[in-house]
Amino acid sequence: VSEASRPISAAPTPRTAVRRKPERASYDEAAVNAILDEALFCHVGVVRDGAPVVIPTIHARHGDHVYLHGSPAAGILRDARGGVEICVAATIVDGLVLARSPRYHSLNYRSVVLFGRVHRLRDKTAKAAALDCLVEHVVAGRSACLRTATPKEIAETEVLQLSLTEASVKIRTGPPLDPDADKDLPIWAGVLPLMLATGEPIEAPGVPPNATVPDHVRTWKRAAT
Amino acid sequence: VSEASRPISAAPTPRTAVRRKPERASYDEAAVNAILDEALFCHVGVVRDGAPVVIPTIHARHGDHVYLHGSPAAGILRDARGGVEICVAATIVDGLVLARSPRYHSLNYRSVVLFGRVHRLRDKTAKAAALDCLVEHVVAGRSACLRTATPKEIAETEVLQLSLTEASVKIRTGPPLDPDADKDLPIWAGVLPLMLATGEPIEAPGVPPNATVPDHVRTWKRAAT
Repeated sequence: VSEASRPISAAPTPRTAVRRKPERASYDEAAVNAILDEALFCHVGVVRDGAPVVIPTIHARHGDHVYLHGSPAAGILRDARGGVEICVAATIVDGLVLARSPRYHSLNYRSVVLFGRVHRLRDKTAKAAALDCLVEHVVAGRSACLRTATPKEIAETEVLQLSLTEASVKIRTGPPLDPDADKDLPIWAGVLPLMLATGEPIEAPGVPPNATVPDHVRTWKRAAT
Repeated sequence: VSEASRPISAAPTPRTAVRRKPERASYDEAAVNAILDEALFCHVGVVRDGAPVVIPTIHARHGDHVYLHGSPAAGILRDARGGVEICVAATIVDGLVLARSPRYHSLNYRSVVLFGRVHRLRDKTAKAAALDCLVEHVVAGRSACLRTATPKEIAETEVLQLSLTEASVKIRTGPPLDPDADKDLPIWAGVLPLMLATGEPIEAPGVPPNATVPDHVRTWKRAAT
């Protein structure tokens, strides 16, 4: 367990001050944005009845905030829109770090942790734009070819906005950091890179024959690491 | 945002009762175990000063509990070992669900959410075994070829154990669920499968020439979905 830390735009608060492995903490807004944009989804934490609740969800960054969405009935959205603080963590794993002993094993990764209170979008145009952002976050180029959301669909979707005012990044790269004394051991050590790969697109039932797999699906890939 | 729910071994508690999309909730222990075993890492949530804090970390399941580990100085471990409740979420993404309109876009995924209080391991033998479990979780077959952890290394590592007494699973599979009226639209819809892929192993500095890339690295893959 290691902790990310440090606000991108303010002096460190107690919870964002670097405690563990500060050499892995990064401070710049570009790094925050790049990780949020590449991470396909995130985990959102809230406090409910005094205990933590964490669930996965899709996010999308737009400028200096992220959008979250879901059904108005979803418990974690009900909690969040009530004005409580939330925490959003987005993590990309880049590789397995294979050392000569258990202690020095690790993962190479890039993670962002955000803290704050959400703003609930009410304006229909703003909500529709946020929904397009969420689609674009997952598949760039797709929103332009879709049927637009109906007023009813927009009304039925809750969209929450979190400002990137308290954010921190943690990144680990490079080889295992075994003690020198271990390096003569006859043990292979190194990094096994990991990345997201795609399989063959699976067409949904009912797609008309003239609707072929579009480029934004055929060439989909996350930003290279 | 959708919520996972339901305990595997007890009547639903308020926080694990299925509220949203119960058709995506699964109840069986085998599903919980399979997702925990396949997910490379997890996100752990705690409450600190009344607010949620979520960070990524490695976990390993062994029987009916999971191990977490880290430096004794890591803030989230300090919180957790103090006896507060934690929440562990592990999520595997299986594909992009591409619909005809923004509303019906989704991800295919499998997720587990665990709740509980941790037990801090103090016994050195138990801690060493847990560290081996954590290595094996990431790379099956590796722990046997490593230098064993020293007493000092074991003492310097905090290991926490969480029982799988309150767990829930949520799984989405299959095509987008567009309304029938959308199916005649000239829009390609379907699923783009996603999986973790490996790159070429990168040897660490200092590895002796006779230590070749072992099978557990060359053939590493996560369980097929």
